[in-house]
Amino acid sequence: VTRTPLITFVSDFGRDDWFVGVVHGVIHDVCPAARVVDITHTVPPGKISHAAFVLEVSAPDFAPGTVHLAVVDPGVGTERRALAVRAHGQLFVGPDNGILAWALSDPEAEVHSITEPRFGRVPMSHTFHGRDVFGPAAGHLANGEPLEQFGPRISDPLRGCRPQPELKEGELIGQVMFIDRFGNAITNLTESARQGAGFLDGSRASFEVEAAGKVVHGLMRAYGDAPVGTLVALIGSSGRLEIAQVGGDAAERLGLGVGDEVRLRLP
Amino acid sequence: VTRTPLITFVSDFGRDDWFVGVVHGVIHDVCPAARVVDITHTVPPGKISHAAFVLEVSAPDFAPGTVHLAVVDPGVGTERRALAVRAHGQLFVGPDNGILAWALSDPEAEVHSITEPRFGRVPMSHTFHGRDVFGPAAGHLANGEPLEQFGPRISDPLRGCRPQPELKEGELIGQVMFIDRFGNAITNLTESARQGAGFLDGSRASFEVEAAGKVVHGLMRAYGDAPVGTLVALIGSSGRLEIAQVGGDAAERLGLGVGDEVRLRLP
Amino acid sequence: VTRTPLITFVSDFGRDDWFVGVVHGVIHDVCPAARVVDITHTVPPGKISHAAFVLEVSAPDFAPGTVHLAVVDPGVGTERRALAVRAHGQLFVGPDNGILAWALSDPEAEVHSITEPRFGRVPMSHTFHGRDVFGPAAGHLANGEPLEQFGPRISDPLRGCRPQPELKEGELIGQVMFIDRFGNAITNLTESARQGAGFLDGSRASFEVEAAGKVVHGLMRAYGDAPVGTLVALIGSSGRLEIAQVGGDAAERLGLGVGDEVRLRLP
Repeated sequence: VTRTPLITFVSDFGRDDWFVGVVHGVIHDVCPAARVVDITHTVPPGKISHAAFVLEVSAPDFAPGTVHLAVVDPGVGTERRALAVRAHGQLFVGPDNGILAWALSDPEAEVHSITEPRFGRVPMSHTFHGRDVFGPAAGHLANGEPLEQFGPRISDPLRGCRPQPELKEGELIGQVMFIDRFGNAITNLTESARQGAGFLDGSRASFEVEAAGKVVHGLMRAYGDAPVGTLVALIGSSGRLEIAQVGGDAAERLGLGVGDEVRLRLP
Repeated sequence: VTRTPLITFVSDFGRDDWFVGVVHGVIHDVCPAARVVDITHTVPPGKISHAAFVLEVSAPDFAPGTVHLAVVDPGVGTERRALAVRAHGQLFVGPDNGILAWALSDPEAEVHSITEPRFGRVPMSHTFHGRDVFGPAAGHLANGEPLEQFGPRISDPLRGCRPQPELKEGELIGQVMFIDRFGNAITNLTESARQGAGFLDGSRASFEVEAAGKVVHGLMRAYGDAPVGTLVALIGSSGRLEIAQVGGDAAERLGLGVGDEVRLRLP
Repeated sequence: VTRTPLITFVSDFGRDDWFVGVVHGVIHDVCPAARVVDITHTVPPGKISHAAFVLEVSAPDFAPGTVHLAVVDPGVGTERRALAVRAHGQLFVGPDNGILAWALSDPEAEVHSITEPRFGRVPMSHTFHGRDVFGPAAGHLANGEPLEQFGPRISDPLRGCRPQPELKEGELIGQVMFIDRFGNAITNLTESARQGAGFLDGSRASFEVEAAGKVVHGLMRAYGDAPVGTLVALIGSSGRLEIAQVGGDAAERLGLGVGDEVRLRLP
């Protein structure tokens, strides 16, 4: 039986320096069979919530058993713990600073503090735990090392902040979570949030979405379903409401940024 | 026998979001043995002709049997077809929007419309066919699944536009196709175009190239064959005439951009 | 026995064009078993010293036997030689222009000029030896081809410039070698330079570091050991003194750039 374990990797290391390559090398040393897939490394430096969101929208697209390595780690070398987590049928490694918020949202999540020195690099730096702690841990998990071996189970990880939409006077009020490369403003108005609020897809034509003082009517199915230049609302590939401009950049046009309010209503 | 199939990947997804990583994950699920080589993902959003050119200059450097995955897809989710093509001894997957122009230029190209649902992801989004249609198809092709299985053979794909040089009053008139990272202006004056026009390499010393109102005399062999700062013309690594500045950025210096005219003559 | 050879790759090719992908393809043809790890490809065009430094700080983190491919090659196609080197227990391939300075600093380095045509691509361009010479050579080295096969041993490679700190009136005077993504200014004040000068780590509290007219007192262990906004000096993950700002960009704040002087003293 040939097994090719998969490790994904998200960080704020950028691709201009050598940090990402070195972590790939360390993983390869520990688990030569693993395939490492880079999600992104251009998380703004230190921006934990950004990486947490990237992980939340991308991890569900990977197969059970995938190991996700996430390193945005301003507290490296201090007392902050290192975590290894089993959740949603997958494995997660990263600092205890909220970056694993989505994994920790699984009520069945098993969370371990990585304390076992034999899985780390010797000597261990105080400044690059991607190389010395997290990368090696991801490799050992990909090798099938049981989660229990990494250190004690804990119950108080930092859970981070995942802003949830609220229903208020017939409106579902959420916010922009991410502006993607195409200028689409991706919100936290997920399918389950909409369903929980009774906003079902059957009524797509009559939806109204308000953002940045602008109202968009109806939900499109695809970006190309309206003429170039049209502002549209649709359900993106991760099941979230997004605001887009056909053939253009909606976020720039509307001046929309992360944290801005988005309202969904049935008029 | 160990076979390591190769899949190349070009898109406009950028590397700041999670789209490229997710497609890698999907391919890995379908064909764990495949190696995925990223060509580039910074094609300007929606710029099909740019991706088509990248594919045209890079694909010939890959071995027979390579699978090329190309996704610049503003029409995702609309009625535009998805294509799987065998051409030039290789395989190609992408939307039916001209991005596969070079593959389709092979008179022997076998073109199939991807309609077979069993090769796609369930559920299928209307906004991310890189993940749901093209990535899985590339994986199945890399697994050796016969082209015929993907859907009916078609004869009317969108062939895109590949501007050809013309011979006029003793000049071979072409255009700039691409500005590379080094500021070299790469043209459509290929070796075969020059030979077809009777401009043979034997006479390199006496060539004259005119672009942006500037005349460059003679063809160099290498960038370093003239002093720093010199404007030179040479035949680049994909067999195309290019205009370069030794140790500098010719496109910036001359204000040259994609589509600008370039004239080659024997004075 | 399954062997998975590792090849690292640093260049100035950028990731917007197709050059990096094509080199990956060529390596895969020669050595399908190899894993290729990209270190960085955004070395400023033609900036050999930048790539040499990246190689110097990253290569030591890789396992013995790793093959390092380095291509910043303004002299491509001219008489400059191509090198294959065994040094520090690893293998190195690149142009003879100083890019392999760190490998050549090993007094036991075995340096060969690559002249054997059977390892190169046919036909060979004058403009892209990453594809036609260095990439294939790296693949053949990863396949275990003996260094001696590539061409004659030479003793006069271009050794490049690796500025060394000097001790002067009780101060160890070095310089900034690199500004990383986080704005940390990484110097050439390595552990061995400090120890050679009698600046031992036992006295970290009393160190004084001066750069850009600013004095930083003491050496921190980790970035998070001082309040946000504090300027700190610490020993980074490659064993070099660096100047950082907690949660910020020290290089920008101080106007520090590559080549700027940094003084270390015990007051």
